[in-house]
Amino acid sequence: MDKIIRALNLAKNTKNVFMGSINNENDMPNIKAMVVVKRVGLKTYYFISNHSATRTKQFMHNNKACIFFNKGLMCKGLLLEGTMEILKDDENKKLFWENNMNKIFKNGGINDPEYCILKFTAESGRYYYKNGTETIELLKN
Amino acid sequence: MDKIIRALNLAKNTKNVFMGSINNENDMPNIKAMVVVKRVGLKTYYFISNHSATRTKQFMHNNKACIFFNKGLMCKGLLLEGTMEILKDDENKKLFWENNMNKIFKNGGINDPEYCILKFTAESGRYYYKNGTETIELLKN
Repeated sequence: MDKIIRALNLAKNTKNVFMGSINNENDMPNIKAMVVVKRVGLKTYYFISNHSATRTKQFMHNNKACIFFNKGLMCKGLLLEGTMEILKDDENKKLFWENNMNKIFKNGGINDPEYCILKFTAESGRYYYKNGTETIELLKN
Repeated sequence: MDKIIRALNLAKNTKNVFMGSINNENDMPNIKAMVVVKRVGLKTYYFISNHSATRTKQFMHNNKACIFFNKGLMCKGLLLEGTMEILKDDENKKLFWENNMNKIFKNGGINDPEYCILKFTAESGRYYYKNGTETIELLKN
């Protein structure tokens, strides 16, 4: 149980994560560093992205995704597998908009067609700790 | 050119990387933190692993792989796409063996059937820097 609590605390307290996707051009796994802008419970994570970004295009072709929370320099961490949605509706755009995002979305700010939100929903989780691995039950939390 | 040199230096100087694979049970991208034990040029990277490890099993089913070198807290980094081989021959086992690995491979040390080496060969690279992305030509280096 102690390990599960530590895994969950890692997810709650880590903003800089690594996002996995499948490259639709060659079926290779891909990784990019991303910043969590909002978390709802332990299953749902939101990220700001560009509509034309490589990652966004990849999720349009294949919504299978993962996020990895790294802990320290050694091989500890939490892997969440799930699916990614691309949100472009006005309600979500308003919800996630911050004034400093004008620097990124220069073609109309909140109305910039490049502005989109990535919503990750976890289906399963695996926690890597020293000398072991444990599968965590996301639905219980 | 400056960005390319910085990307290459990142690969040379980073031991703790993130390895991407495809989960053969559900086709999900997976990520795990791994330590580079040897690098040859800029295309070839070696890792120590267990024969029964989840990652090793995944590469037996699908050799498509990536490694990601993270730079700082923001979204900079270097993504290398390529393929992963699992080495279990005596020559490579001797080459990579260190005495402190007896702690990991307790069932016979260098002869432990769990001991294996993962060899990653990069085919292409993409460097993420502030406000941009650049594809790097690996064969030129």
